[in-house]
Amino acid sequence: MERLTSRQNPTVSRMRLLGRERAFREKCGEYVCDGTKLLGEALRWGAEITAVLWSKQPDIDVPADVPQYSVPAELLDYASPLRNCPGVLFSVKMRPLPVRAGRVIVLETMQDPGNLGTVLRTANAFGMDGVILTGDCADLYNPKTVRAAMGALLRQRAESMTLEQLGEFIERNGLRLYGAALDERSVDIRDTMVDNLAVAIGSEGRGLSAELLNMCEGRVIIPMNPACESLNASVAAAIIMWELGRGR
Amino acid sequence: MERLTSRQNPTVSRMRLLGRERAFREKCGEYVCDGTKLLGEALRWGAEITAVLWSKQPDIDVPADVPQYSVPAELLDYASPLRNCPGVLFSVKMRPLPVRAGRVIVLETMQDPGNLGTVLRTANAFGMDGVILTGDCADLYNPKTVRAAMGALLRQRAESMTLEQLGEFIERNGLRLYGAALDERSVDIRDTMVDNLAVAIGSEGRGLSAELLNMCEGRVIIPMNPACESLNASVAAAIIMWELGRGR
Repeated sequence: MERLTSRQNPTVSRMRLLGRERAFREKCGEYVCDGTKLLGEALRWGAEITAVLWSKQPDIDVPADVPQYSVPAELLDYASPLRNCPGVLFSVKMRPLPVRAGRVIVLETMQDPGNLGTVLRTANAFGMDGVILTGDCADLYNPKTVRAAMGALLRQRAESMTLEQLGEFIERNGLRLYGAALDERSVDIRDTMVDNLAVAIGSEGRGLSAELLNMCEGRVIIPMNPACESLNASVAAAIIMWELGRGR
Repeated sequence: MERLTSRQNPTVSRMRLLGRERAFREKCGEYVCDGTKLLGEALRWGAEITAVLWSKQPDIDVPADVPQYSVPAELLDYASPLRNCPGVLFSVKMRPLPVRAGRVIVLETMQDPGNLGTVLRTANAFGMDGVILTGDCADLYNPKTVRAAMGALLRQRAESMTLEQLGEFIERNGLRLYGAALDERSVDIRDTMVDNLAVAIGSEGRGLSAELLNMCEGRVIIPMNPACESLNASVAAAIIMWELGRGR
């Protein structure tokens, strides 16, 4: 077990950059996860782990071919993108799983990485065939997304698309696209669910863009107390995905 | 309009303490909110606003009897409990609304204030008759709870109770108490919903305590992909509340 003690060590500085810079993550095709639980998930799902740094030895069998380094707690905090690093930090190869036809959620401009991670976790729990990100969404591999997704990134079909690519995907797969909107033309989500359906939700503040709404063949609404304007975006997505999965 | 410029000003230091110390909030019976949107909600719902500090004058009519102070942006940041204070900070009197019989969610040891606020927001949107906090939950009036609740604290029936008080409440109101649990004795939540029902959910890591589970007459489960162990606590609560409100 090699012990690293310097901030200048290339493995340490590389881990730090992977956690902090999206462009570097994309260049390397890797991202950063933390915690023993997620390390166990990554091993279980056959992810390619490129390095493990720990200040407390993880209580888990890590195969001998995975490079492991012991580091002082302060150095781990330096390398970690998030506060309260739980003692284990590791980098893993991106392995995107393409979205397929079936039941799909489309997120337009979901900018909060915690919400995005929660949506991925829920999508995986409810067996969605895909999560499509469009507009100015948070990075799928932002460390806050990864932490909130609780391992779902390893398993969940998810892709970023432009609106044009989304339109092609919808058409190619014969999907029906609905938009969630507070609108008198919207129908109750409980009355609209069929298979091969994609539902798009917009940002909490502004809802869906006019361009995306124009691509939709209908609008759905989650009925709620009129005193409330909206739900948290990850909660709205959860209710929609729950209803999408209801027929299963 | 009075202009305040000093950290030693009693209104500034009082606001700072209200945002930072639960004991001080409880002693004063006040809590802190931020943002023009929430200020509008507080006025709309007749909350008693005790002071408003702003660095950008809110684009909203504030009655003349509400004490308002203009402050430099740095002083507002000093007074604010959260980063990215949106330019308006105000204190408001607590006005707890008691839980009543009907459809109730019980949160045991929900420690994350953001999740707690999201549950309050969702509960209000889905017309819950109450949110009961038991065990070691986050403070209802933590600024992160308040921010995530998006005004729901002004309208939502919510109370903290010991397990003993919860038992008395359940009995007095003839409520049926169910616990959410990953357990082979659990029944699908879609098959269990009746009126006058309370559903308890536990912490993400450990679930419900044995004591609370013993008080339940049944257990419910949100069916999900077996590869996932759990949902985010505020998402699990949302699905349960959505199902509780379904018959309405």
